[in-house]
Amino acid sequence: REVLTTMDKLLSVGTKIVAVGRNYAAHAKELGNAVPKEPVLFMKPTTSYLANGGTIEVPNQLESLDHEVELAVVISKKARDVPEGIAMNYVGGYALALDMTAREIQASAKSAGLPWTVAKGQDTFTPISSILSLSRVPDPHSLELWLKVDGEIRQKGSTADMMFKIPFLISYISSIMTLLEGDVILTGTPKGVGPVKVGQKIEAGITGLLDMHFDVGRRQKT
Amino acid sequence: REVLTTMDKLLSVGTKIVAVGRNYAAHAKELGNAVPKEPVLFMKPTTSYLANGGTIEVPNQLESLDHEVELAVVISKKARDVPEGIAMNYVGGYALALDMTAREIQASAKSAGLPWTVAKGQDTFTPISSILSLSRVPDPHSLELWLKVDGEIRQKGSTADMMFKIPFLISYISSIMTLLEGDVILTGTPKGVGPVKVGQKIEAGITGLLDMHFDVGRRQKT
Ligand SMILES: [Mg+2]
Ligand SMILES: [Mg+2]
Ligand SMILES: [Mg+2]
Repeated sequence: REVLTTMDKLLSVGTKIVAVGRNYAAHAKELGNAVPKEPVLFMKPTTSYLANGGTIEVPNQLESLDHEVELAVVISKKARDVPEGIAMNYVGGYALALDMTAREIQASAKSAGLPWTVAKGQDTFTPISSILSLSRVPDPHSLELWLKVDGEIRQKGSTADMMFKIPFLISYISSIMTLLEGDVILTGTPKGVGPVKVGQKIEAGITGLLDMHFDVGRRQKT
Repeated sequence: REVLTTMDKLLSVGTKIVAVGRNYAAHAKELGNAVPKEPVLFMKPTTSYLANGGTIEVPNQLESLDHEVELAVVISKKARDVPEGIAMNYVGGYALALDMTAREIQASAKSAGLPWTVAKGQDTFTPISSILSLSRVPDPHSLELWLKVDGEIRQKGSTADMMFKIPFLISYISSIMTLLEGDVILTGTPKGVGPVKVGQKIEAGITGLLDMHFDVGRRQKT
């Protein structure tokens, strides 16, 4: 059967996004963070997804959001205590995602020992591409990810530089919580994160495979 | 139509659990935390649900988990930017839940400025009762919640003591992220939290309305 090829399908099937922080040494360093011994995990709600072409909304009290371009791994079936050696059997596809972050809110949360939910979990904070089938991604650890703001390159990095690789992440996360079909793992961002403001445009892509674009606007009340 | 009356229904429809920390002043104080000016929010995955009668699993490297008995609010329909005055129209029912917490892991996360996901999000960390319909809960702010470990009372508190009340929580959370049918808000725990160990039994209830019971066991590998 056709699996998870559209945004709608992903949104309707998946129930969680598990994001990995500080998975590229150069990015951990640029934010002044230690390189972690174990993956740093946090959750984003699926209501934060935004399809290609949409508008990322900056909350009213903020000047900007930070962009973090990341490879997204889409889980194909229930995964619990999966050994690293067979973990890739649980991958249904890949996508490109932005882990948009309200950095000032995250900074206050970090210094107060509080969760990152408000900094990371707002609607439109996870722009995501359509899903690439496995046949289009023979090696997910040799992809070039890039991101431009108003045409200027801000991030360019290789998934080869992930400290914790995808099989390890699936094994590790599935030892903590069951992963289900349509769940997404965000694998962390290479260096070059920085602010985007209302009125700017973001383009991002996986070289040779896909690109996507988003406007940045002010938060709309419904 | 019949809405969300069984565990299975809840599990199959809901996509997130938004939990509120430090919502009872006496509990914030017992853990040495400040009373917050805004609700402290964090997420738990729906894979952490455990139905009445199940076994709460203590991860291998831990001695115990902390119990936190909480009123759970089940959302009935899509909620975004909901004004406080009509927020109760978005409640589909109530349940009793335990926000099981690996306190040592949470303490390290807090001091390192890291998320609480591993401390709060593991499978079986959200034991939950069946859902009470609205007609059975005329006033959700006058319920007595209680919890016993091996027959000894550990927590007993009134939902009247919540600092942020349910309409405010729905309004506040829905201004940050869209809530969907079946999503659950955990409204925080009264004082008396403490450890439970492998081999102990937990009973908890809402006086006059329901009770539930769970065993505490060692984490089983699948
Ligand atoms: Mg969190
Ligand atoms: Mg990130
Ligand atoms: Mg709690």
